[in-house]
Amino acid sequence: MIATALDGFVIDLDGTVFRGDCIIDGAPEAIAALRQAGKRFVFLSNRGNISRTMCQERLSRYGIEASEEEILLSSTVTARYLRDREPDCQVWTLGDAGLREELASFGIAHADRPEDADWLVITLHETLTYRDLNAAFRAVRHGARIIATNEDRTFPGADGDQIDVAGMIGAITASTGAKVEVVVGKPSAYMAEAALSALELPAERCLVIGDSVESDIGLGKRAGMKTALVLSGSTVQSSDGLWPARPDWVWPSIAELIRLVGNKGEGTDE
Amino acid sequence: MIATALDGFVIDLDGTVFRGDCIIDGAPEAIAALRQAGKRFVFLSNRGNISRTMCQERLSRYGIEASEEEILLSSTVTARYLRDREPDCQVWTLGDAGLREELASFGIAHADRPEDADWLVITLHETLTYRDLNAAFRAVRHGARIIATNEDRTFPGADGDQIDVAGMIGAITASTGAKVEVVVGKPSAYMAEAALSALELPAERCLVIGDSVESDIGLGKRAGMKTALVLSGSTVQSSDGLWPARPDWVWPSIAELIRLVGNKGEGTDE
Repeated sequence: MIATALDGFVIDLDGTVFRGDCIIDGAPEAIAALRQAGKRFVFLSNRGNISRTMCQERLSRYGIEASEEEILLSSTVTARYLRDREPDCQVWTLGDAGLREELASFGIAHADRPEDADWLVITLHETLTYRDLNAAFRAVRHGARIIATNEDRTFPGADGDQIDVAGMIGAITASTGAKVEVVVGKPSAYMAEAALSALELPAERCLVIGDSVESDIGLGKRAGMKTALVLSGSTVQSSDGLWPARPDWVWPSIAELIRLVGNKGEGTDE
Repeated sequence: MIATALDGFVIDLDGTVFRGDCIIDGAPEAIAALRQAGKRFVFLSNRGNISRTMCQERLSRYGIEASEEEILLSSTVTARYLRDREPDCQVWTLGDAGLREELASFGIAHADRPEDADWLVITLHETLTYRDLNAAFRAVRHGARIIATNEDRTFPGADGDQIDVAGMIGAITASTGAKVEVVVGKPSAYMAEAALSALELPAERCLVIGDSVESDIGLGKRAGMKTALVLSGSTVQSSDGLWPARPDWVWPSIAELIRLVGNKGEGTDE
């Protein structure tokens, strides 16, 4: 495979571009190299508790300028899912403000009371209280169906792993007996379709770059994209092909992208 | 069966003695009748987020005086379980302050950091925040085993059903993949044994009175006690023997107890 065959890049954020509060060495330069080479790219993240605007601001602080169209979060894709399939629905949310911002930007109506909601949208809620849990519980007890932006169990925090969306989901499903009907986040087809649709390229001309074998490499494999696993995040060791989905490349970090797009055709081939 | 054969009474609280913020009509008189007749009794409740002292104060406000020995909460029985089986353990808690008070009264050590805990004790946590959830998550990720005071899904609040301990448990088990090792609350044998040990009577001379077919009647049946279901709480209709555990009596409320102990031998026989 040669690098010139790759025109679209699907780039994970946490563990790939930044890690905790730090930018990963070479990430801004790698993104700049893509721009310079005229490549299309989209950031594709399972973060569901922030909006694209919040994400833009964060990337900008790291010296990476991205348009709104170049960012797809699981909150974005969840909002689009509801707008396309349930345009008249009312939602209740269990999650941080970024989710509500993203839903509102797609014109999704927020119910006045949990009892009135058609859907409960769950994402990470770092400011959760018992009151929030109880309102979400009531929405489901009164018939709201459950959609989750993602179902990650943990995410790396400043002082170690933290409880993620799976905890919020578990609280509601265990107390109500209800099931989650839709999980939007990677490695789902919803996220892959959203990325390919944004890039307007066939899957085989696209490369997924991410730190999660399950979410990123899994999504790329299923969608027919090329895949590069970076060891700068949650996956830290090469395991000689023992991963369930074997990536096309394994890189120390996204900085390798500079070589790939900089030296056309003589890149990091397998 | 005649009432004179019954010398010990195991009495549920929520839905049996009070409901929400209201005392159930005739409950103080029924307890007074037991005292007058020289019967032994113990209040046995799945509440795990309060201490016996808190419970005493509440009963006193309703005109019911009970000694500490006449109250057994799931927090009490959990504390006793740990003192008897894991005397040197350190615990972390996910629950309201009453649980910690009860654990401390049995000399159970609270860990300084979640990472140091041998056991995570989970109960209802009406002042829960994300920070609390995350600390509990960390305790389990660092090896703490899980013991729950009970696993009720809901409890009746002032303005409708509220999310109960099952929600707190679900958050931790779903995010960590860990299982709950011990559930102390009714209908467990731990609670039945604690009640019989407090009454110092054989099971066949004891009557369980409660509003839950599963928790109260189930506990009584398994332990060999007589059972009376009251329709003043979560169970509101007689179902003509369709319950999984058929109670010996079905009463509108605990007020029936006055007839049973007042008219020895001519009471509410089946």
